[in-house]
This record gives sequence, C-alpha cells and structure tokens, in this order.
Amino acid sequence: MNKIDIKSLYESTSTAPKNLTISGWVRSVRDNGSFGFIDLTDGTYFKGIQVVFDNKLSNYDSIAKMNTGSTITVEGEFVLTPENKQPFEIHATAVEIFSTTDADYPLQKKRHSIEFLREIAYLRPRTNLFQAVFRIRSVAANAIHSYFNTNGYVYVNTPIITTTDCEGSDQMFKLTTLDLNNLPKGEDGKVNWGEDLFGKKAYITGSGQLHGEAFALAFNKIYTFGPTLRTENSNTKTHANEFWMIEPEMAFCDLEELMNVEEEMLKYVVNYVLENCKCELEFLDNFVQKGLIEKLTKLVNSNFVRIDHKDVITILKQANVKWEFKPEYGEDIAKEHEKYITEYFNGPVFIKNWPKDIKSYYMKLNPDGETVAAVDLEVPGAGELMGGSQREEDYQKICERCDQLGIDKSKIDWYLNLRRFGSCVHSGFGMGFERLIMYLTGIENIRDAIPFPRTPKNCDY
Amino acid sequence: MNKIDIKSLYESTSTAPKNLTISGWVRSVRDNGSFGFIDLTDGTYFKGIQVVFDNKLSNYDSIAKMNTGSTITVEGEFVLTPENKQPFEIHATAVEIFSTTDADYPLQKKRHSIEFLREIAYLRPRTNLFQAVFRIRSVAANAIHSYFNTNGYVYVNTPIITTTDCEGSDQMFKLTTLDLNNLPKGEDGKVNWGEDLFGKKAYITGSGQLHGEAFALAFNKIYTFGPTLRTENSNTKTHANEFWMIEPEMAFCDLEELMNVEEEMLKYVVNYVLENCKCELEFLDNFVQKGLIEKLTKLVNSNFVRIDHKDVITILKQANVKWEFKPEYGEDIAKEHEKYITEYFNGPVFIKNWPKDIKSYYMKLNPDGETVAAVDLEVPGAGELMGGSQREEDYQKICERCDQLGIDKSKIDWYLNLRRFGSCVHSGFGMGFERLIMYLTGIENIRDAIPFPRTPKNCDY
Repeated sequence: MNKIDIKSLYESTSTAPKNLTISGWVRSVRDNGSFGFIDLTDGTYFKGIQVVFDNKLSNYDSIAKMNTGSTITVEGEFVLTPENKQPFEIHATAVEIFSTTDADYPLQKKRHSIEFLREIAYLRPRTNLFQAVFRIRSVAANAIHSYFNTNGYVYVNTPIITTTDCEGSDQMFKLTTLDLNNLPKGEDGKVNWGEDLFGKKAYITGSGQLHGEAFALAFNKIYTFGPTLRTENSNTKTHANEFWMIEPEMAFCDLEELMNVEEEMLKYVVNYVLENCKCELEFLDNFVQKGLIEKLTKLVNSNFVRIDHKDVITILKQANVKWEFKPEYGEDIAKEHEKYITEYFNGPVFIKNWPKDIKSYYMKLNPDGETVAAVDLEVPGAGELMGGSQREEDYQKICERCDQLGIDKSKIDWYLNLRRFGSCVHSGFGMGFERLIMYLTGIENIRDAIPFPRTPKNCDY
Repeated sequence: MNKIDIKSLYESTSTAPKNLTISGWVRSVRDNGSFGFIDLTDGTYFKGIQVVFDNKLSNYDSIAKMNTGSTITVEGEFVLTPENKQPFEIHATAVEIFSTTDADYPLQKKRHSIEFLREIAYLRPRTNLFQAVFRIRSVAANAIHSYFNTNGYVYVNTPIITTTDCEGSDQMFKLTTLDLNNLPKGEDGKVNWGEDLFGKKAYITGSGQLHGEAFALAFNKIYTFGPTLRTENSNTKTHANEFWMIEPEMAFCDLEELMNVEEEMLKYVVNYVLENCKCELEFLDNFVQKGLIEKLTKLVNSNFVRIDHKDVITILKQANVKWEFKPEYGEDIAKEHEKYITEYFNGPVFIKNWPKDIKSYYMKLNPDGETVAAVDLEVPGAGELMGGSQREEDYQKICERCDQLGIDKSKIDWYLNLRRFGSCVHSGFGMGFERLIMYLTGIENIRDAIPFPRTPKNCDY
C-alpha cells in the first residue's frame, strides 16, 4: 500500500494513488450502525479528510466507539467526490486502531477557551486555532530566512551568553553553574565569580546587535534570528521573558536605505504567508480577527509613510483628541499616539529622527546635534513592529555619547574599535518575531504566539 | 552612478553596468607612482576585485598610501579582462577614502595563526579563512531550513528556559534574576526560589526534544534549530558551552525511516554547500584540509551502512588492533572504535540497537528486552554526527524505565501523558550544528566554527 500524507492528497488529487495507507488522529467519528464517517487529521495539513467505513469491517464496533484523539492507520481507496464539500474521501478497507485516548483527555470535541488551552500548552497545537498559529509561525520564519538568503545576507548566530553588562544588566538574566546554597565567597564577603564556569559573572544577552555589527563590517549584510531573554517583570499581553528576534545589520546603508529594507522585507513576509497559509488565514479571519486577510493584503499594497518624530508631535498636538499622555517635542510617544498616527495616515508609518536623549548611545547623531538617525515602524493594529537606526560610525562621537551616558567604554572596547578599523556607514534594525506573528494571525496575547510561553511566575512544561 | 556589490558583478559580468559605484574595504594597494592597483572586497563575495587607479586622480598619493582595511567608495568603469587572471577590473574615475585604519589594526597583510585570530573574534570574519567558514555556516543553515520546509516539516521554537531538571541539572546552567550577593532565604536557610522571576528554580535546557515530541504529535513532522547551552567543564577541541542544534521529530516514523531521513537530509545539506560555496571550499581544500571536496563528494554518493551495535562489537573484537579501550558487548564505543568502523566500511555508518543500560529512558525498548531502538551516525573524519532513536510510545514501559532509573515522573507528567493521549510510533534525532560545520569546512576546533565561542574561562566579546 502507498503510505501517504494528507497534505500530498490535497496538493494533487489528480495524482493520488488509488489504494493508499494513511496514519493519523481521529477528530470525530459518527455512525448509523451500518456505516460511518471518521474525520481524520495527520497534522500535515490544516484540513482533515473524511474516511468512510462500513460494517463489512470486522472491527466496526470498535471503530465506531473510538474517542477523539485516537491514533489509527487506515487502508482504503481514494475516491474523488466533486459533488461534496470535500473534494475526495477515503473508503476504508481496513482500520487499525493503534492507540486510544484515556478518559481524561482534555481536548474533547467542543470549543475550549484560549485561556484553558494555555494551561495545556503541550496539547493545544492539536487544536484548529494553534494549528493555524504555529504553522503560520513556521511559514513566516521560513519567509524571513528566504528573504535574507535570497538577498545575499549572511545568517550569523550571535552568542546568547555574555559577560558584558553594558546594555543594562537589570534587563538580563544571570547565568551560573555555582551552587546558590553554597556560594564561594571572596574576602570581601561577596560572591567569588572567579570560581564560576567562565571565571566571571555571566548573563544572557538581550540583543545580538553589537556582535551583528562586527559581522556586517566583514560580510556587508547579515542577520540574526534566535531566542532572546529579558527579565521584565511585566504581566501584559505583549511581554514575555523569552521570545525570538530578528536583527539584520547592513554595511554601506544609511537610514533611508534601512527603511527600504524594512519595508521590502515585511511585505515579502506578509505576502509569503498570504500565499502559503490560505486555509489558516481563512480560519483566523472567521474566528479570531474579522478582516485579517484584508488587513494583510492592504499592507502589502501600501506605501509606508516616512515622517520625522517632530512632525508627528505637531500632528498629535493639532489633533482634536483628549490625550492621556500629552505629546511633547523631545519626548517619547505613547501607545495612544502610535494608534492615532497610523490611523491618521491609514497605513504603516516610519517615525524617524528621534530626540537623542530618549535613544541609545550607538545611534548616529544627526547634523542638528539634537536628533539621532533612529526609526520605528508603526503598523496599524500592531503598534511598533520594528526599531532600528543608522549606527554612529564616528569613533570620537560614539565615545562622547558613552561618556555622557556613563557607559563604561572599557567593557565594549572591541565594539568601539569597529569605528577605528575600517569604519563605514551602517544601519540595522530589530523585529520581535512574536509581535509579527500576532500581527499575522490576529491573536492578541503573546502567550498564544509562542509554543511554550515564559512569563513572570509562569514557566511550566 | 549604479551602486552595485561585488557578488552581482561576479554573478553576471555580461549585464554589469558600464559605470558603477562600489563601496568596500581595501585588502592591499600597490602602485608605481603613475598608476596602481587596489584589491577591494565588500564582504558579499569570497573573491575581491581589482581596481586600477592612476595619477590623473587628484588624491592619487593618498590612495597609494591607504592602509589595509581602509573603507573606500570607488566610481569607475567596468572593464572585461578575459586575458587576465581576473575576469574583469574597475578603472577608477574617483576614489573617496571614507575611513582608514588606525596603526594598531591587528589584521595586517600577512598570515596570522588561527590561535591569534581566535583572540580577535570580532575581526577574524574579515580574513579569508573565516569568510569561508562563516559563509558556509550560513549556507548550511539555509540548506537545513530549506530541506525541512520543502519536506513539510513545521519549524518549532522550543523554549530554552525550563524548570524541569530531569535531564540532569548538572549539565544545565541555572538562570536567575536574584541578587546573588543578597539572596532571599527561607526558614531552612536555603534560597527562597519563590522570590525569583518564575517563582521557582529555573535552568537553561540542553535539548528541545521533549517539547518537540509534543509538537510532532500535533504537526506530524517538526524540527527545531536554535542555541543550546551546556555546562560541561571540558576544554577539548569539540566542546563548547554554547552551540546550535537541530532536533527533528517525526510521527508515524520508526527507526528505519528515521535513518532514511538522516541520510537524505545530510546528503542534501552537503550537496547544497558543494553547489553554493565553490570558492570557499576550494580555499579550504587548499589551505585547511586537503581532499575536502573529494571527501564531501564521496559522502553524497555513498550508501550509509546500517549495522547493530553488537555486530560492531564483534568486528572490533576481531580486529587486529591494540585498543586503548577494549570493546565489549553491552558497552559504549570509544572514539578509536568509531574511527575504525568508518574506515572498515569506508563510509558513513549507522550504529543501531544499542544496549538499553547506556541509553536514555525515552528510547524504545526492543522486543529483546535488552536493546533500544537508538541509532548513532558515524561519519569518516567527523565521528558521531547525529544521535537519534525511536521513542518509547508505550505509557507503561516508559514509566517503568523512569522508575528503574530513578527519574521523577511527576516532573515530566505532561511528556509521559503524550503516551496516553493518541500515542503513536515516533522518532527523532539531534545534530550538533558546529560538528557539521567542522565536517563541511575541515577545521578542527569548535572554537573556529562558531562566531563568538564560549568555553570554560572564556567568554569574551
């Protein structure tokens, strides 16, 4: 018999073998005593298939009584059914029941709340909702790799262990092999980090940017794509302590070219998902976010607005809105402002040239001496999706910024040296992958965009 | 002027624009007072290009004096030179010197030892050796994503933070947000983990397999590809504390089918690198490992042997070799044995059906009650490249193994439950990415296969 998967059947009904074998899991069974129907999935495709069985099968009664989730292997005939809802069905000649589910199987044939499913993170990928979300996550990841590889970027695996805490160690997890109930102490009574594995205090880094820059100055265009850990003790819908991030970095690339890359990449990924996840998006459009497909299609066809931070503030100040946070020149903008500005322009907006005092030391100081060449991409319904900047390539200027901000230059001397050894105009950005997934799927909680979420007081499985 | 990169020029000399602009870094300059040559690279291609300049340029003297590593932008004419070593060159009409290198730039125009380059991990990607190694790393990663996506696998980002220490917490880093100089203590004087971010003791996991299995039982075929941290205090050429790993997991897949996947995937990746990294492999074949290309080509065209562990022991016992470690039935095999057996068969060898006592609790017990359906792939010149197994899908049997090995079942109850809720035959394997890179490039130290290596007492940059 030809062992085949459901995806292959849907993709080429015309070349499907007449006799075949399929293994999968039972979604439901109904029967009338003489024949019945199994809704079968094997995980390879969003839709299941219909298996018809009848009482000529010796184990008919056992088949009819199978629980949801049971594992079976079906031998049967592939039959086209153009008059039916399904394009084809399988007429079973044998059904082998490999395994059933115990009575406490939580995924019974009914709707479960998303909160309940969150409690069973190891089973929820079997539901329609998470089949859709996590397949889109996989397809979107593939789209990202595809975009960057096609365009000549080198994929760099920057380290996640670091001993540099200049990024702000309050946001970084400490990492140790020491026994915390029996810590080695120095003469000063403090922990003797010399006895730890790396011989010094180690952290998990919250970004691969600095290392990425070193590689961009060797390979021209690079990107990272990996997990990021941050310690934020924040229980919101958009914060998790472990998430994935994409950080591209390009040599000989200024702020305008950076925005070109961001716009092109995002459109490529959204379009790729639109083309490759039709079933999943239709389901999500029906049950999670009405208008999802229209929203994504609109993004692909839009031109992203590019506007200076100060001009955004002017628009906000002129708006006839009672703000919770009053917009001010030189200050950050709040969520309500982001929302207003994307609605104002009816599409994605690059906000660029931010006040230097609210941005990082490594961003390029503009000729005005007041702003830096930083850019945030605001997307309708998602808020800030990417943040990037042209990097300060002038050694003197970046050192001055470090001094002004009290950053210990000796801890990042190698990074600063990049400005002394063949420095060049270069730019990069970061995109939180889960935020993209939330945008692509319409789901509203980051806990549902990542397979096994880690949030404060929550690290199960 | 047409801004272009060097890769595009090499890829289509016939469509190159006549007048163009290229930015890049100077590898070397030589001149005779009236004209000169710049060897220019921009990181997009393994080879650089030759730029010809003459003393009609007003800044001729400055150009002639540029240091290695200087950043320039060249405007010029593209000229085909079929009679020369290079297929083309650029006749400069202008050379703008953007940035030079300070006198202490470590990468002068001479050969540097690999150990010296390891000390300047942030600059070594600019050398030929690491241009080759890290581009192959990127291409191989792309090949892996391409193989699994093309074959219907779902990419799953399994968590790296875990509170389950059943895999052996002695191999896992502890992760905390607590101040180690001021730890909160309980009444028993021990650390009160309730005050840590997750409300309990947290680790970095050394494998995504268990979570991968949960997703394979929903999506059929999945793979992970991400960083892995282990605490091994081992200073060898093959150990690092941070490395990347690929862990595929397949439902309805037994040991034989698992080996099919491993063999097909490896051949795909090696072939992909052979086709896409010709310059890099030629360089490595010349300067790092003679015969590298032949070795890789041979692998692609070989049939991998499949042999039981006990039959390997028989061969080893019959061999006329004075072993350092005596081969014994029921015991592990040493590096010298691995080497012998791949030479014996003159190709890659799957060693399968291992004694249960030296393997993990989750591996499927064979009908003999003595061996498990595990398999290691041994490759000539690389040793063990992949390790995998059919997983025990029987709930009673896996519980018995846990009890025998003293594993606390309550900590992995969700994992064990996968055997109660629609269990199925399934298998998976793990492959260390750096080990693959070492095999593909011929380099002998894992520190040179990963951008910023982390090893005991060594965590710089």
